[in-house]
Parts: sequence; structure tokens; C-alpha cells
Amino acid sequence: MIKVGLIGYGYWGPNLARNFAETEGVCLAAIADAHPDRRAAAARRHPGVTTCDDAADLIAREELDAVVIATPIETHYAFARAAIERGKHVLVEKPLASSKAHAEALGALAHARDVRLMVDHTFVYNGAVRRIRALIDSGDLGELLYLDSVRVNLGLLQQHANVIWDLATHDLSIMDYLIDVRPVAVSADGTAAAGFDHENVAYVTVHFDNGFLAHFHVNWLAPVKIRRMLLGGRQRMLVYDDTDPSEKVRVYDKGVDVDMRNGETRRQILVSYRTGDMYAPTFDRQEALALVAREFADSIRQRRPPLTGAAAGIRVVALLEAAERSLRARGQRIEL
Amino acid sequence: MIKVGLIGYGYWGPNLARNFAETEGVCLAAIADAHPDRRAAAARRHPGVTTCDDAADLIAREELDAVVIATPIETHYAFARAAIERGKHVLVEKPLASSKAHAEALGALAHARDVRLMVDHTFVYNGAVRRIRALIDSGDLGELLYLDSVRVNLGLLQQHANVIWDLATHDLSIMDYLIDVRPVAVSADGTAAAGFDHENVAYVTVHFDNGFLAHFHVNWLAPVKIRRMLLGGRQRMLVYDDTDPSEKVRVYDKGVDVDMRNGETRRQILVSYRTGDMYAPTFDRQEALALVAREFADSIRQRRPPLTGAAAGIRVVALLEAAERSLRARGQRIEL
Amino acid sequence: MIKVGLIGYGYWGPNLARNFAETEGVCLAAIADAHPDRRAAAARRHPGVTTCDDAADLIAREELDAVVIATPIETHYAFARAAIERGKHVLVEKPLASSKAHAEALGALAHARDVRLMVDHTFVYNGAVRRIRALIDSGDLGELLYLDSVRVNLGLLQQHANVIWDLATHDLSIMDYLIDVRPVAVSADGTAAAGFDHENVAYVTVHFDNGFLAHFHVNWLAPVKIRRMLLGGRQRMLVYDDTDPSEKVRVYDKGVDVDMRNGETRRQILVSYRTGDMYAPTFDRQEALALVAREFADSIRQRRPPLTGAAAGIRVVALLEAAERSLRARGQRIEL
Amino acid sequence: MIKVGLIGYGYWGPNLARNFAETEGVCLAAIADAHPDRRAAAARRHPGVTTCDDAADLIAREELDAVVIATPIETHYAFARAAIERGKHVLVEKPLASSKAHAEALGALAHARDVRLMVDHTFVYNGAVRRIRALIDSGDLGELLYLDSVRVNLGLLQQHANVIWDLATHDLSIMDYLIDVRPVAVSADGTAAAGFDHENVAYVTVHFDNGFLAHFHVNWLAPVKIRRMLLGGRQRMLVYDDTDPSEKVRVYDKGVDVDMRNGETRRQILVSYRTGDMYAPTFDRQEALALVAREFADSIRQRRPPLTGAAAGIRVVALLEAAERSLRARGQRIEL
Repeated sequence: MIKVGLIGYGYWGPNLARNFAETEGVCLAAIADAHPDRRAAAARRHPGVTTCDDAADLIAREELDAVVIATPIETHYAFARAAIERGKHVLVEKPLASSKAHAEALGALAHARDVRLMVDHTFVYNGAVRRIRALIDSGDLGELLYLDSVRVNLGLLQQHANVIWDLATHDLSIMDYLIDVRPVAVSADGTAAAGFDHENVAYVTVHFDNGFLAHFHVNWLAPVKIRRMLLGGRQRMLVYDDTDPSEKVRVYDKGVDVDMRNGETRRQILVSYRTGDMYAPTFDRQEALALVAREFADSIRQRRPPLTGAAAGIRVVALLEAAERSLRARGQRIEL
Repeated sequence: MIKVGLIGYGYWGPNLARNFAETEGVCLAAIADAHPDRRAAAARRHPGVTTCDDAADLIAREELDAVVIATPIETHYAFARAAIERGKHVLVEKPLASSKAHAEALGALAHARDVRLMVDHTFVYNGAVRRIRALIDSGDLGELLYLDSVRVNLGLLQQHANVIWDLATHDLSIMDYLIDVRPVAVSADGTAAAGFDHENVAYVTVHFDNGFLAHFHVNWLAPVKIRRMLLGGRQRMLVYDDTDPSEKVRVYDKGVDVDMRNGETRRQILVSYRTGDMYAPTFDRQEALALVAREFADSIRQRRPPLTGAAAGIRVVALLEAAERSLRARGQRIEL
Repeated sequence: MIKVGLIGYGYWGPNLARNFAETEGVCLAAIADAHPDRRAAAARRHPGVTTCDDAADLIAREELDAVVIATPIETHYAFARAAIERGKHVLVEKPLASSKAHAEALGALAHARDVRLMVDHTFVYNGAVRRIRALIDSGDLGELLYLDSVRVNLGLLQQHANVIWDLATHDLSIMDYLIDVRPVAVSADGTAAAGFDHENVAYVTVHFDNGFLAHFHVNWLAPVKIRRMLLGGRQRMLVYDDTDPSEKVRVYDKGVDVDMRNGETRRQILVSYRTGDMYAPTFDRQEALALVAREFADSIRQRRPPLTGAAAGIRVVALLEAAERSLRARGQRIEL
Repeated sequence: MIKVGLIGYGYWGPNLARNFAETEGVCLAAIADAHPDRRAAAARRHPGVTTCDDAADLIAREELDAVVIATPIETHYAFARAAIERGKHVLVEKPLASSKAHAEALGALAHARDVRLMVDHTFVYNGAVRRIRALIDSGDLGELLYLDSVRVNLGLLQQHANVIWDLATHDLSIMDYLIDVRPVAVSADGTAAAGFDHENVAYVTVHFDNGFLAHFHVNWLAPVKIRRMLLGGRQRMLVYDDTDPSEKVRVYDKGVDVDMRNGETRRQILVSYRTGDMYAPTFDRQEALALVAREFADSIRQRRPPLTGAAAGIRVVALLEAAERSLRARGQRIEL
């Protein structure tokens, strides 16, 4: 039985608590939160669990095998480091840390102490996203051309971070999971509209050497909720619409045929488009977070790296950090 | 009766011909196209109209008062200049010219010759767009925060231009019409995917000094057709979805209230969102191109500048040119 | 403090339990279910509550003020009668009983014993439905012309009832709440497709003397989920789409103007349609079942009839019974 | 070359004229319409065609091989009879006639005179509908269970007929084409709301001996446009949404498995639902009316019955007549 302690019972913590409580072979043993009302809420929902007000106290508890960190980004590093140093396995809410240096330090420390370090890139465990990965692997899409992602609505306020660190982390972690080639540069633009302290409307472009282009629109000030990703392949193209209740993934038998052989013909015809059937494949509808909890537990038991380990966490933080630097440099392209 | 000649009977020319043929006080007298099959098509649809294979011949015809140019972008300048020099009024298909210098030269020449020069920014005459302008003018939206535009689908090939010159021209002309403040810089990224000669997926960001941000996604390789603009205001926000058959414009009584007065409170509450009714106003469903034809005729008769005259045409070409330069400079911000 | 016992912890019971547990002034004291695993589930979720396997035992408990019945339809009458006879207030899951005679008997008995008898017509407490009622009351819709309702998807099996008793009860209770004029007849058609014992696709038509017509399509075998009601008024018409996450109620400024004065003109023009704005009003998003629980408690405390009392319950059962008779009589119209 | 005359240049006539004008091997030679402005419109659009004000004159023209009738329903019989009697082939706008007796008389007469008699059941020539027929033929849907059709919006006025004769004719002709088993009875309900002379909201149920059920909702007073057909099969189910610009036909790998073998098990499990992929097949996007014109011409040249000949026309009129009788008999079931 793996004994798990949770730090942070705010917005996302309750979801983690519920899923770990329901994971086989795992015992949710302790919850820490600085706010009395959040501790009270945790006690009501999880009667047998110890609660405390200090993360350090929780980390110090000998009986815990693992610590789950669901606190604001800027605290991830300190909590995770302390937990790893005490020999605990650690799952950190996304993003792994607030800087690439910190993320790398955590990765190195976990390696040195031989504990599992995992980041909660939830969407990597989402059935639709895993189905898309399978479609890519099957070759159905052909050569990948571009990825365009939109994640917008009238959103929650994040007081200590801009919309890129909050929302784009999801989409960058999806891209990191789907696209094997590594990006080479990042640029970003945004605005802190309506008197906000941080950017609440932003665009991130991720550049690749092979011509593939990825672009992300994240926005806390949109009147409608849009969660949509286009993934263009030379053979087929797909739309992943997370707001569609029934058909989240649609694969279009549409593609581009360019005749490269004949320069003269090319001037005339150049391009033909194919349009065929569309299909919406089924996929596993299991809650992604249940799979996150199980993967964390399995990686501990099997003494193996988790699917979304330090390496993935570092890559995503590197993209976020580069996007942040580009924002500060008025959209300048930042090499990775 | 204003006698009009049309140069170019390809993709857009037939629409212009039909609308000018139906405009009161206008007589469509001649059509020039280099392709015999296009001339034959023009003759079938417009039996009484003279056809010729050479634009110069058409321009030279004494009886014509005005010339409409619906040819590829790179020919706009030469044809328009020739027509103006012969004292014809000129309507040019968008964009006005392929460079800001050429656009300005045409504007100056038309001024000197005292003829009307108009550019076919069709969407400025669209009922939905004019309704949005009225909503802005009424103050219903409050301070404008951002504009986000997406215009994508599996598109027609443009052999001599990238997707920005083709598709973004529409959206930039809408922005130019809706937003009174003038932009200060442009940046753009894109990719010429699938072996194309020109960018077929691109993003354009237009920067303003007052924090307003405009962003455009144009794409010829998308599996679904999306024509959607978000316009965020501090009081209300709207969505303009041109593919919606019934409710193209939706105004959301959603907005952001930030309490700026009290630093302490601000840390606590900072922001509240309002969510109220949505409404979809009706608007004039008349074909925009009919209004384009009428505006051109009216401006000639009334000896006044048309709504989308040289100035608007020059501003849009300046944005396109800056976007092109940014594309070539790997996304660098180009000051206007 | 009102002490409540719940009979039936199957599909809907857990929702009732949760809402009564969270209702102020109410104490959920006991839950009865014949199935051990359901009792175990109840005990897990509601640790302080007594569980028992026999409804009669629960009804016999002196300390209970009220009984909530969430068991199959055919048991409603016996359980409700027993509870009323012991002086308990009773809330019955919809429909109130399996025959009009039973429903009336319960109503009479509750009146005689001076206890509250309420039926869980959940949708009457739904914010969207109450908003529609307010729109009708305001006169915005004008004279009501027809109601058309569709409630279909690939559904749960109901072993002891056809799809009308299961699904149409919702829509008939909405109609009963919205339309003040009383219907005069009912007809119904349906089929027990794919070897089912009971009709799983059915249509119910409810007739009114004033020309208003109501029609209901209910279906357990549909590939897509549709929950949509059209309500046509002479001034305005509305669509209530319960599957729309954001705008469930849309009011269209569309209507019909018939010139009745001039016979001759009437032959010529007869009718003109108005088409104006659409708007989607906001409404209370509170969970309807929370309001059901509160209304039951309030009606007990205030010794007043609940909003959906015996009278509403009887009317809806009378419609269901007539629909059932029509089904058996091959669609014959059954007078009420 | 088949010389065709057209009677009626009102709402649908211009579409027929255009398509016959563009059909190979056909010459549109004459158009008759009683209204001078309609004749003028016909002359403008079809300069070489003779126009006349009297249908009888057109029918009398020796040079015509065939007559196309696009006039109000109540005139179909007289015009078609006169044309057939003069040895002309005849295409009649749907429905074939205003009574089954008239439809049968036309069929018999055409047979006796050995001319082709065809009815314009346009949707039978629609690519989506033909694709659905192919899906049925392939066995993909399995045993057919039900058909549910909705065709509603704020509609055109039909002064001489109710909404069933106008709109349901489309859907009944689709059903007639798709479903090989013949129906045995029809029932219908409706209301002439808002002071109309004829029913403008109506429901038609078509009964079959094998348990298959078909139902039609037609409505001229709906605030939104809905054109949707559900076709439930035991193996798969499909949705045909004619308003969807891209995916009109969607096939859902959803079905019902009922274990019929074991009575005891059946009480327990009875039914399981399958849910799999959805796909939207492509289909021929050619204008249906072009295929109607071509089929008429081909059937004349090949001296063979057209796809939608007298038999189909009679069957559909029989259904309409029965629906009308049911309406007059307050929804009573009318055996066919």
C-alpha cells in the first residue's frame, strides 16, 4: 500500500484527493492546506485522513511514501525538493516548476535519490489525446504539417501568473506528447487587457526545423468556451474539439496532393485536394486523472519512470519560459 | 448612365459583372479577359456586352467612364494607373496593390486626375460587419480589448501569393473599418507546408499602442471551414461567425470588472466577471457586392470619396506588406 | 429539523439523498433499499444515516417526519399510502402513481390526513423552464400556438414501463406547468422495436379545445441525444435546448401577422412573417433537485401545498394513462 | 433532341427551366405562365424560348415532345391529362396529383398512350438520400426499426394546401424510396394556428405491419430551420441533417443487442447497447434537379419507366390523401 500525502486542497487538489482515494493499492493518508476552511472541506470529504496546515509537517511525516503537490506554481520547486530530499516520490501539478533551471534541478535530485518524479500533464492521459497519438502512430495522418490550438473562455483569475503559464501548459504538454520532433524556437505575443497585472490574452508560436508549425491561442477574456485543436497531416487532418459531448475527435479524409515532378504542369495544376469521408473514432472515456493516479502508483511499484516524468516536465517548462521571455521581448523569437 | 468596363472574368469577376449589371444608373459595357473560354462565358451571361482579350484595349475605350479591375494582385497597379491616366474612375479588387508604394502612387494619381479610386473591401459592405460597427459606435461593447480572427478551410490555390495576401486581406480590411485607432506594428509567422511555394498556414499579429491586440489565423489547409471573429470589449463581447446561417453576430453581456481603487481588496477579489443575456441582432442581408457597386456609382455621381477609397486601400496594403516583411524576418516585429 | 427517510437508492435515489443532506433544516435520517450493495453505497456516502432493507420498516420509524419515495413506478402507490397513513409527509418520484385512480386516492388521503404530498416534477424547478414560464407570463410570446418536444437518445432500459411513462413524464410535467389551459384529449403511437417488451419509440399528441397543439417524441433508440422543445407564440417563438451548454433558451422575435380584415387582400398577401433579433436570456443555474428538496421542506414547515402537489401529479398521470390507452387502441384519440 | 415545354414559372419553375436548359440532348423550347411579370422574367433568363400565357396553347404545340408541369397541385391533373392525351411525355412537380384517383388515372392514361409519366420527387435524386439507400442495401444498418423526420421552419405560405401536402410530400417520397416494405395505415394530427385556413403544424404517422414505424413533423411556424431524419437500425443508426453544410449523413455504430434466448437472463440484463465510431460518408454533391432532368430525358430516349414514375407518384399521393382524411377524422387511423 502506497501512502500518499497531498499538499494543497484548493481548486485542483480535491480532484487529486478523490482520485487517489479511489486508486487501488494507494492510501490517501494526509492533506495539508494553509486555509482552515479548505482543511475543513478536506476533512468532510475524506474523514479518515489527517489534515495539517503546514506543507513542511506533511513532508516530514515518516509514514508517507509519496507526496502530491497541488499548490501555486511558484511553490512547486521548494515543496518538491523538500519531499524528494526526504526520499518521497513526488507528483507535481502542471507545470513542474516556474523555471527550467528549477525543473532540471528537481529532475537531477530525483534521479540522485532514486525516487519517482512525475508531473500531472493530465491531458496526456485523456482518452481523446491518446487516440490521436494512436492515429499518428498508425500513419493515417501522413506527414504532420501543423498544429493549431485554441483554449479560450471567460476564465478564472490566476493572480500570480499569466494565461500562458495557466492554460497553454495544457496544450504544450499535449504537443510534447504528440509530436516526436523537438521544437527549436518559441515566440509569443499577448496583452494584459482591462487593467490586469498579467497577460490574459496570448498567442504562442512554436517553431520546428522541419517546417512543422504549432500555434496556441489562450485567452481568459473570451465570451465563448472554445477548446479546439486542428492537426493537419498530408494524408488526413483531424479536429479535436474538447467541448463536443459526443464526437471529440473527427478525422477528415482530406489532404493535399502536390505534383512535384513537372515544373510546367505544376504552374497549371500544382495542387489537388482530396475530400472523403469523415469519421469520429471512439476512445476510452475514463477520467484522465484516475489514470494519472494509477500511473504514479504503478511507476512507484515498478520502479520505472512514469509516462510524464521529469523529462517531459522540463521540456514543457522550457517552452513556457521561452514564451515568457518572448513576451517580455515584444514577441522576439527565442531559440530553445 | 455610368459606363463600366471590367478587366478579369475569372473567379471574382463574374460576381462583379452580375452586380454591376443589376445596379441602377450603371451600364456594364465591356469585359476583357485573356482567356477565350472566360470571354465566351462572359458573352453567354452578358449578351449585350463587348468582350476583348486585352486590358489595354478596354482601358482605351473612350465611352467607358469607369474600369473595374478583378485580375491577379501583381497586375492591379499597372491596369489601375493606365485607367486613371485616361481619366477613368477605378474600382480595384482587394488588395489595392502589391506594395504600399504602388498603392500610394495610385492614390496620388487619382487625386491629381480627380477621379474616384475605390478598393473592393467587400466585407466593409457586409451587413453583419456594419452591424458590429454600429454596436461599437453605440458604446455597447465598452473599451475594446482585443480582436481575434480565424479564416480557415481547405482552400483554393493562389499561385502567386501566400495565404496572408489572399485571406487576411479580408480580415485586415474589417479591422481597418472597425477600429479607429491606428496600429503601430505587425508581426507574422507561417509555414509553406506540403511543398507549397508560398505560406499556406499563417498568423498575423497587429500591435497597437493602447494595449489593444489583433490577431489573425489564415489557413488553406484546414479540414473544416471556420470564419470566426471574437471582439472583446470591457462591457460586452461579441462573436461574428460568418458560417452560421441564422445568427452570425452574437453579443454577450459578459465583461470584466476590476476594482482598481483598493490595493488590498485587489489582492483578494481583483476581478469579477459578469454573465448576462446573449442576443443576436438582425442586420441587412443584402449582398455586400451590390452595395460595393452602388457605392462606386454613387461616389462617381456625387464626386465624393468612396467609403473604401485610396486611404483604406493604402492602410491595408501597408499591413500586408509589413506582415510579409515579418514573415521573411522570421516573425520579427515590423514597425509601421 | 425535518427528519427525512428515503426509500430506494438506485438510479435517482443518490441524487435525492445528496440534495436532502445539503438542505437546511432537513436531516436525512434513514435510507431503505432491498439490495445490499445499494445499502452499502448509501452507507459509504452518508455515514451517519441508518440503512434498512425493508421500506415498511423505514415507514414505521416514529422519528421520521417525511418519506421520499424513489422506487419503480408500480410501487409508488403502496409506499406512499402506507407513509401517509402513518402521518408522514411524502415526496414521490415522478410519476406520482401508475394510474389516475391511485394518484387521486393518494391525493385524497393526504388531504384527509393533512400531510403534504408532493411529486418530483424536477423540470418545474429547472431555471430554464421557470424562465420560459416568466416569458409566457410577460406576454412576450403572445398567444401560444403549439408546443413540440423531442427527448431522445440511446437510453437506459426500463423493464417495467414503456418510454412514455419514463421520458414523456418529464415533458408532460413541463407542459402542465407552462400551459394554463387544460387539455381535452390524448393520442399516442409507438413501437416496441428490436424485440423489446414495451414501446421504446413513441409519439404523444395532446389536444386542446382552443387549437393549441402539443406533441412529444420520446425514444430510447436514437443515436444522438436531443432534448429540445419548440414553443410557438404569435408574437415570438422560443427554442429550449437542454443539451446546449450555454444558451438553453433562445427567444426569436419571429411571428406571424395575418391580415383578417380584407378578404381580397387576404387572398393576395394573407400572411407576413416577422424576423427580428434573437436573444438568449440568463436564468438561475441552481440544481433543480436542490429546489425540489427545499420546496418540500418549506411546504411542510409552512403547512401549505407544494408547487407540484397532488393536483399536478394527478393531471400528469391522467395524461400518461390516456396515452397508454391510446397506444393499446392503435392511436385512437382518448378524451380526458 | 427532346423539345420540352414548361408550364409554370413561379417558385420552382425557374429551377426546372435552368436545369432543363443545361441538360444535354434537351431543348427548352417554351414556357407558359399566366402572369406577365413571370413571363417577362422567363424571357430575360431564357431569351430564345417562346413564352405564352395559356397552358393549353403550350400543350397544343406540335413541336414539343415533353411537358413539365410546375403549377399548383390542384391543376396537375388537368394539365398532365391534356398533355398525355396529345402524346407528350410528362414530368409533374410533386405531388403527382391532388387525389389518388387522379394519380391513378394519369398513370393508366400514360400507360395507354405509351408516354413517360414522371413525378419530380427531387429528394430521391439527392446524393445524401441515395447514399442512405446504399447503406441500407449494404446491410450496414441491419433490420430497420423506425424513421423519424422533422422538416420545419418559418415557411412560405401555400394558399391552397396544408403543410402536409407541401412539406411532407418530400419526406414521404424519401420514405417511399428507402423503405421497401409497404405501409398499411396512416394517421395525422395538426392545427391551423394563428388563423390560417389550412394546417400549418402537423404530424403524420405511417404504420407498417412488421413493427417499423415512420413519423413526420412538418411545420411552417417554427423559429428555426430543422431538416433532420433519424433512421434507426438494429446494427447501426443514422442521422440525415440536410442543414449541415459538410456532414449531412452520419452513421453511428450504435445498436441494440437483446438476448432473446434465456427468459431468466432476459429479466436481468435484457438489453445492451453498443457504442462505436461514427462516420460521415461522402456522397455525390451534384444538384438533384439536374439528375431529375437527365432521368426524364433518359427515360424518354430509352423508352423505359423513370425511377420516380407513376407508381411512386401514386403511392405518395395515397399517403397524402390518407393523412388528409385522418386530419379530418381527428387523427383516426386510415387503412391504406
